[in-house]
Amino acid sequence: MYMTQAVCVLMPRWLITMTPGCPVLEQHALVMQGQRIAAVLPRDEALARYADAQRVELPDHVLIPGLINAHTHSAMSLLRGVADDLALMDWLNNHIWPLERQWVSEDWVYQGSLLSAAEAIRGGVTYLNDMYFFPTAMARAAVDSGIRAGVSINVIDFPTGYASGPDDYIAKGLAAYEQYKGEALLDWTSAPHAPYTVSDETFVKLRELAERLDLQLHCHIHETQDEIDGSLKQHGVRPLERLHKLGLLNSRMMAVHMVHLNEAEIQLVAQQGVHLVHNPSSNLKLASGVAPLKALEAAGVNTVLGTDGAASNNRQDMFAEVRAAALLAKGVTGDPLTVNARTALEMATVRAARAMGRADDLGTLEVGKLADVVAVSLGALECQPVYHADAQLVYVAGREHVSDVWVAGRQLLRNRELTTIDSGALLARCGDIVARMKAGR
Amino acid sequence: MYMTQAVCVLMPRWLITMTPGCPVLEQHALVMQGQRIAAVLPRDEALARYADAQRVELPDHVLIPGLINAHTHSAMSLLRGVADDLALMDWLNNHIWPLERQWVSEDWVYQGSLLSAAEAIRGGVTYLNDMYFFPTAMARAAVDSGIRAGVSINVIDFPTGYASGPDDYIAKGLAAYEQYKGEALLDWTSAPHAPYTVSDETFVKLRELAERLDLQLHCHIHETQDEIDGSLKQHGVRPLERLHKLGLLNSRMMAVHMVHLNEAEIQLVAQQGVHLVHNPSSNLKLASGVAPLKALEAAGVNTVLGTDGAASNNRQDMFAEVRAAALLAKGVTGDPLTVNARTALEMATVRAARAMGRADDLGTLEVGKLADVVAVSLGALECQPVYHADAQLVYVAGREHVSDVWVAGRQLLRNRELTTIDSGALLARCGDIVARMKAGR
Repeated sequence: MYMTQAVCVLMPRWLITMTPGCPVLEQHALVMQGQRIAAVLPRDEALARYADAQRVELPDHVLIPGLINAHTHSAMSLLRGVADDLALMDWLNNHIWPLERQWVSEDWVYQGSLLSAAEAIRGGVTYLNDMYFFPTAMARAAVDSGIRAGVSINVIDFPTGYASGPDDYIAKGLAAYEQYKGEALLDWTSAPHAPYTVSDETFVKLRELAERLDLQLHCHIHETQDEIDGSLKQHGVRPLERLHKLGLLNSRMMAVHMVHLNEAEIQLVAQQGVHLVHNPSSNLKLASGVAPLKALEAAGVNTVLGTDGAASNNRQDMFAEVRAAALLAKGVTGDPLTVNARTALEMATVRAARAMGRADDLGTLEVGKLADVVAVSLGALECQPVYHADAQLVYVAGREHVSDVWVAGRQLLRNRELTTIDSGALLARCGDIVARMKAGR
Repeated sequence: MYMTQAVCVLMPRWLITMTPGCPVLEQHALVMQGQRIAAVLPRDEALARYADAQRVELPDHVLIPGLINAHTHSAMSLLRGVADDLALMDWLNNHIWPLERQWVSEDWVYQGSLLSAAEAIRGGVTYLNDMYFFPTAMARAAVDSGIRAGVSINVIDFPTGYASGPDDYIAKGLAAYEQYKGEALLDWTSAPHAPYTVSDETFVKLRELAERLDLQLHCHIHETQDEIDGSLKQHGVRPLERLHKLGLLNSRMMAVHMVHLNEAEIQLVAQQGVHLVHNPSSNLKLASGVAPLKALEAAGVNTVLGTDGAASNNRQDMFAEVRAAALLAKGVTGDPLTVNARTALEMATVRAARAMGRADDLGTLEVGKLADVVAVSLGALECQPVYHADAQLVYVAGREHVSDVWVAGRQLLRNRELTTIDSGALLARCGDIVARMKAGR
């Protein structure tokens, strides 16, 4: 049966397609038809060609592709601020891991993930690349909220309340994958946790799994100097060299953190087409350091951005990460020309889509791509005046200025109101969980 | 005539006095009477003692002292984002200075300062320590908006549209000071622009002026390595040593930036009781570097925070600076225990009041102090759950969560609405100015 799909014409003040070299467009419109972008064209033409279609006037707004948060642990929003300002091992051993052991369950992960989905949508994020236990819970939270997600077949070599050991993690992850295989909002990743928690044998299994199912790999690598020192002691090589020998360094790999890299490693990562997921706020807060963005840019590495989980970056805010990436790269190198505003925006959009293996469908506002679209209002006095709308998004606007969000043409945020999530009910359920955690029962 | 002053009782969920060692208070109230704080006491007692007074229920809110922005150039909001991602000298010589030469006037400074005052109030800032030309315009903007301000008797050794040379700057600054001397909202600073723009003779004059009128000094120092290299060439010593010889390093001095400091200079600054105004975002964006906060803290230096002007930090947001200070200090030193959340908040409140010479009246919520008070709502889902309200302010909340602001007991923001500034009219006037600037006439 032939069906005419609903057409919706967005009429922003500014439109930034994020295609290479495309300037900020004014007096343009974006046409969504069904789940996809049907046209980007001058406003007058849009009014003539789509005279009968639904129109959304966005007179103070910039239209951009939805932001992609390329690394988070969504459910950890329930641990937001539970323990701050601590040394990493104190924080993990005495706070985060005991709480996770005691509390993490399918429902806990679902509620926490839905809270993060709500925060993401309100902040202009249309894609959460998640890594956590109970992937079916993340999958449900994404489907229920309408956000796009990368869900992890995640593996760690020690037992947790979720799984008993690597084979059990893989089996559970595969079962989740099979259950949600047809869901268009979901991508799946093969996700070994980190070099210090995963054996060679498991790494190889997850590499083969990624190849067999055509998935991206999602792994924490070179987050701290301790990790590197430990690997030298245990394996005689630095983690990146170990992973290279195991065949994991290629364009499937989304290597998260990568704070500590020598020049040879930067070249290796560039040659192998590894995608680097930079988490500037988390790396600062946990005192891990600053990834060498200037050198990575010079080498041509595809660097993208993530927030990390709310236990280590309490604010799950991609506007903050975009801004931090642009500022930090300059401040720590003394080069004001590195990572300009447009580059930082690319790291959260077009480049991130490439890292997720979804460049054909996501990351830019181009005809035929999925309509994951965000409107940001620059009308508030703290966003005025506007000389350059692209730089304004990076250096001035915050997630609070996001007004409307669409994922695959479906509106998830309308004038800052969530359309798919009942905030009051969600906060009540999360409040109950947190009250039980505070009471220790 | 005896007058009974109006009493207003604020009933927040959490109250942080920012007095040393004071925990987050729950079930407490703050009583304002006239311009000052009359009581901080348990909620039940407040209900009994002030049964007939006006009450403001703040059920999801934290009450804190108003934030103090210890360094900005308020009027430069009109240049927000006019030129980004450029090398410092290109940015100054080819963009900022030509625009200032062409456009800066009493009205331009007034409108820009009022825009910054509005942004500040909406962001929980109750005190702007300003440095700019036409100080009467800043004074008017502060008085008209009701915000507290440090207004500068500012001097630069070359002529501008404002003044012809150092003596003219001083004369104009003094005339402004005399004109506004009785205005309780205003403090005045003696403000030599920087070591590379002010002669020895002028520095001494401004030191003497500060001593005679009992003012703080406000000066950019050691912002860039170039400044230090230039001083070595011209004066044979680094700027701090030069200023020390001229008698300017003492507890009147608010030394802004101080990115580049050797160990001896850190000790000198500590010994002399100099206050250091850290501008983390501006220093990153202009690629100046990162002030050594961990070492400064170890030496006991009173470090406080500022945004710098909107041309170099497009977002005039003290929540962002507090967070950046806490994160950066950890990330660049590898020490997760340095500059914890409470310390970062102190830098924007109690310590900043000390730096301004106003510790008796400002910076904490204590009986007898001026009622400069800010309510921050943590009710939004991105601020939930709350385990520690103080850390939540630093690592989670943003300026957009500020709901209500009082300065000297007068409410300037009510449920995010400005009470003293007509935003629409202000934006229209600023829009006209910017349109003229864009048209070059």
